[in-house]
Amino acid sequence: MAPDPRDLPVVVDAMGGDHGPAEIIQGAVLARRAHGVEVILAGRRDVLDSELARLGARGEAEVAHAGDVVPMTERGAGALARTGSSLAVAFDLLGRGVGGAFVSAGSTGAVVANAVRHLGLAAPVSRPGLAVALPTTGGGATVLIDAGATMDPTPEMIVQFALLGACYAELVLGVAEPSVGLLSIGSEPGKGNRLTRRAEELLRRAPLRFHGVVEGHDVLSGTVDVIVTDGFTGNVVLKNVEGSVRAALTLAARRGAAEPERLREVARLYDPETHGGAALLGLTGTVVVAHGSSRAATIARACVVARDLARGGVAARVRDRLAVRPAP
Amino acid sequence: MAPDPRDLPVVVDAMGGDHGPAEIIQGAVLARRAHGVEVILAGRRDVLDSELARLGARGEAEVAHAGDVVPMTERGAGALARTGSSLAVAFDLLGRGVGGAFVSAGSTGAVVANAVRHLGLAAPVSRPGLAVALPTTGGGATVLIDAGATMDPTPEMIVQFALLGACYAELVLGVAEPSVGLLSIGSEPGKGNRLTRRAEELLRRAPLRFHGVVEGHDVLSGTVDVIVTDGFTGNVVLKNVEGSVRAALTLAARRGAAEPERLREVARLYDPETHGGAALLGLTGTVVVAHGSSRAATIARACVVARDLARGGVAARVRDRLAVRPAP
Repeated sequence: MAPDPRDLPVVVDAMGGDHGPAEIIQGAVLARRAHGVEVILAGRRDVLDSELARLGARGEAEVAHAGDVVPMTERGAGALARTGSSLAVAFDLLGRGVGGAFVSAGSTGAVVANAVRHLGLAAPVSRPGLAVALPTTGGGATVLIDAGATMDPTPEMIVQFALLGACYAELVLGVAEPSVGLLSIGSEPGKGNRLTRRAEELLRRAPLRFHGVVEGHDVLSGTVDVIVTDGFTGNVVLKNVEGSVRAALTLAARRGAAEPERLREVARLYDPETHGGAALLGLTGTVVVAHGSSRAATIARACVVARDLARGGVAARVRDRLAVRPAP
Repeated sequence: MAPDPRDLPVVVDAMGGDHGPAEIIQGAVLARRAHGVEVILAGRRDVLDSELARLGARGEAEVAHAGDVVPMTERGAGALARTGSSLAVAFDLLGRGVGGAFVSAGSTGAVVANAVRHLGLAAPVSRPGLAVALPTTGGGATVLIDAGATMDPTPEMIVQFALLGACYAELVLGVAEPSVGLLSIGSEPGKGNRLTRRAEELLRRAPLRFHGVVEGHDVLSGTVDVIVTDGFTGNVVLKNVEGSVRAALTLAARRGAAEPERLREVARLYDPETHGGAALLGLTGTVVVAHGSSRAATIARACVVARDLARGGVAARVRDRLAVRPAP
């Protein structure tokens, strides 16, 4: 019998990210020391061994040697061709039941391509979707999916993302019967673009609690539990939230709203550093994508998220849930 | 010789908007009294006369009778079929050289359809684009185009919007050689969706100062003078800016950042009430679309913007500028 992935270590792509392996390795060690997450580091053995020694953490993380690295600029076929990369080695560990979840701060495109190739999609999903939980003004969170995995989805894929997002809200955020809104430009009939008009028809017939259309100002208002959109719009919106929150607080601080530290607290809520990673859903395994600019603390949080997603058996539960529903 | 549109009154659709004719009429009267804008009100004569009397403003605005109204839910063919509507009457006044610019807080879709039918597009533009100037943290403004007029543009139309936005930045904001950024998800080659990948190729060869790709967090940062995108993404982003700024300030206030009035000042910068209207560019005449929820002060500001755009001869200058450039 295959080992239960819930008890397996988290595999970390030690070579991904803008700040180099030192930052990632420090994050992985922090995940173990502060949160008890067992990790395997995939990357160049000489680099990893010397970094672990420098941190006084020899033996605290397993090392899986990978001689090659996928550069941040490489995606798709180019990334897949690098069979000796830290990404390929990491996914091989998941495939062989050695690792239970995967964390990378490398190129999202390369992670998506490798995840689909090595883990495979959970039927009946035809493309993966990236889910991010954004804090709302009401104190809860709204799941935004797809935040950047699939650029030109079909209307049918939008429905799959909606189902994946609803599963995530139920299983990770603990929301019973989550409501789902379709991101568009107004609820009057015929509004929206070709993709959303067709997706709206399909969502009305899908096995989920469809709220209807939501707009750009609903993203942080807690109107719905899940907001579904294509990966292009989702990624633009995710980054626009970060930028708009930062701009508002900068302008407020400049006008002398008195407590800069309180303003920084709010900015941190929407900082990519804070999310701790987005879950790539629709695969047979657990994959968390951290922002390229992640520092050690963020990598540690991403490891905790990955461990918790794997422990909750989220990938399997999403797969099971989608399998019993008729494909849209 | 036709009268110079720069000296003509602004025609206001008195029947559009969420708050009814009283609010619009009050705004038009305010535009005249506070800013010296001559206005013609298009709408039901009985309603307009009694509202003007109530405001003690009889004779301060001309009235053009229109027996019909386009409901907010009606767009495209339905809106065009209402030949006796306040929209149709207003555009007729512009067409006959009686009015020099047009302001409406009615359905954007209906305004766009009627504007294209009655005014016509400025060659070589094939669809109009909605331009909004958003204040940036640096103290300037970035023009977002298209903020919601054209849902599924071709890559060629994106280039036209870029040229229109650059003309607007030059002529209205006074920016010499404005830089233009294409809204997408990252600058690595091959990133983006089908539309932006092709649009990026065309923009690199277009007669404008193309900065390259910008992302969601650049919208308020002042990275470029003009951000070009499709009308769906632009409208989602415009509303997401409003919502994210509001959310950030709500959360800051709740954490006791001390000066609520300073926070409200910032919120007002991005309130749809404040923009005073978006310019619908690419037409042979001047059209300003105000938010449906506009109150009197916003309508007055929209009238001033329309008068200034018409006085500057912006529509004609945009048309002349595009005519001498090879169509992309």
